[in-house]
Amino acid sequence: MEKTDGNVSESGNEMTLDSVRDSLIRQEDSIVFSLIERAKFRFNSPTYQESNHYASIPGFSGSLIRFFVKESEFLQAKAGRYQNPEEHAFFPDELPPSSVPPHTFPLVLHPAAASINVNNKIWDFYFNKFLPLLTVPGDDGNYATTASSDLACLQAISRRIHYGNFVAEVKFRDAPHDYEPAIRAQDRDALMKLLTFEAVEEMVKKRVAKKAMTFGQEVSLNSTESKGEYKVDPPLVSRLYDEWIMPLTKLVEVEYLLRRLD
Amino acid sequence: MEKTDGNVSESGNEMTLDSVRDSLIRQEDSIVFSLIERAKFRFNSPTYQESNHYASIPGFSGSLIRFFVKESEFLQAKAGRYQNPEEHAFFPDELPPSSVPPHTFPLVLHPAAASINVNNKIWDFYFNKFLPLLTVPGDDGNYATTASSDLACLQAISRRIHYGNFVAEVKFRDAPHDYEPAIRAQDRDALMKLLTFEAVEEMVKKRVAKKAMTFGQEVSLNSTESKGEYKVDPPLVSRLYDEWIMPLTKLVEVEYLLRRLD
Repeated sequence: MEKTDGNVSESGNEMTLDSVRDSLIRQEDSIVFSLIERAKFRFNSPTYQESNHYASIPGFSGSLIRFFVKESEFLQAKAGRYQNPEEHAFFPDELPPSSVPPHTFPLVLHPAAASINVNNKIWDFYFNKFLPLLTVPGDDGNYATTASSDLACLQAISRRIHYGNFVAEVKFRDAPHDYEPAIRAQDRDALMKLLTFEAVEEMVKKRVAKKAMTFGQEVSLNSTESKGEYKVDPPLVSRLYDEWIMPLTKLVEVEYLLRRLD
Repeated sequence: MEKTDGNVSESGNEMTLDSVRDSLIRQEDSIVFSLIERAKFRFNSPTYQESNHYASIPGFSGSLIRFFVKESEFLQAKAGRYQNPEEHAFFPDELPPSSVPPHTFPLVLHPAAASINVNNKIWDFYFNKFLPLLTVPGDDGNYATTASSDLACLQAISRRIHYGNFVAEVKFRDAPHDYEPAIRAQDRDALMKLLTFEAVEEMVKKRVAKKAMTFGQEVSLNSTESKGEYKVDPPLVSRLYDEWIMPLTKLVEVEYLLRRLD
């Protein structure tokens, strides 16, 4: 296995269906790790309250999580994070320019990709639907670490979903004639059908559940047997993929293909 | 298994040798996850160059990593991270006060713990010795993500090492008479001897290598057999514990005990 298999920058213009698939598989590990780390903490509702609790942060009103993600993205933008076409900010407006020497990432995507950002949908499902299922209710006071763990989850999930741009590009290059009629007709439903492979989706759901079992087990020297207790619930990770990650990835793919011939 | 077993705030004043041990074991998982995530990227030397490459960051000269960690800690301090006695900053000077409502963390430690910070030693071994062993040489351009992954590693390792304060406290409470003579004599060597259990250290080294194998394997649906390729080198994780994490944890324990009767 190539250690750097997750990096577009490695495969460059020789990006293939296989290299894209390898990246998606590697990204599953990152997502499962980030979920396990978030689940260590309680739900910690003060992190999310849209009240004036945090009015003492100069120049900011709103929840701690919004403050934290916005400020983190501001800092990461200065460090050049969004130079990489794999990365998308949750608060893309008013980001500062990168202050680091530019790196030339290979031009793989149609320029239309730059305008596709579904992070508002990710924010919505993650905080309103998924997080209460992932965490134990209660408050352990670790709001900053909680926010930092949420950011890691959000970024890993966002990278996976927006990787749909690359998925769509390699699928298109592989068989342009299959996609062109639906693109010219701007037919979303036809594109969605072309991009849906139920057997593959079932396999992904099984694999991420297995990863949750493997990475979320208690590893001890005495035995390799699990006690059947995991740090994240394996069916919940399947559900995360089934209900949110895979549909939103396909939405990105459709949005990208609709503009692929512009 | 209690999902929140890693949190001091849960166990509070009922902290026991067992709960401390459970936290140390859970923290091993976090450390291995963070190493796997950092190893995804190349060494990426521009992240560490102390040159004037980054002079375009207003008001800052020095390496990107120093800028990134310093600014991240500034933000996390505002969000209250350092309210938790488990957390220690790498750049503790000039941190802003917390802007979030205070949470009452149980008072477990002697106040002397607040003055113990070995993060400069962690910074040194991590960047100068460990990182070149962890990563593949080269440059993939992901400097911001690299810096962010380094921060996750540094914070996980720092939390583990400074947890030595809690380890020392429960050991002291468990058998104060064993430690008092060496503390009164301010005898570092005697304390170090009292705190060293070679059989336990060997077990920890084996367990973290097993975790590297378990969490760093390629999980596939077809087989549970590993191809013997891991995302981080298991003996390197043992060595990280052997050469740096366990000695520095014991240093923190000794420093704490030396002041325990003040």
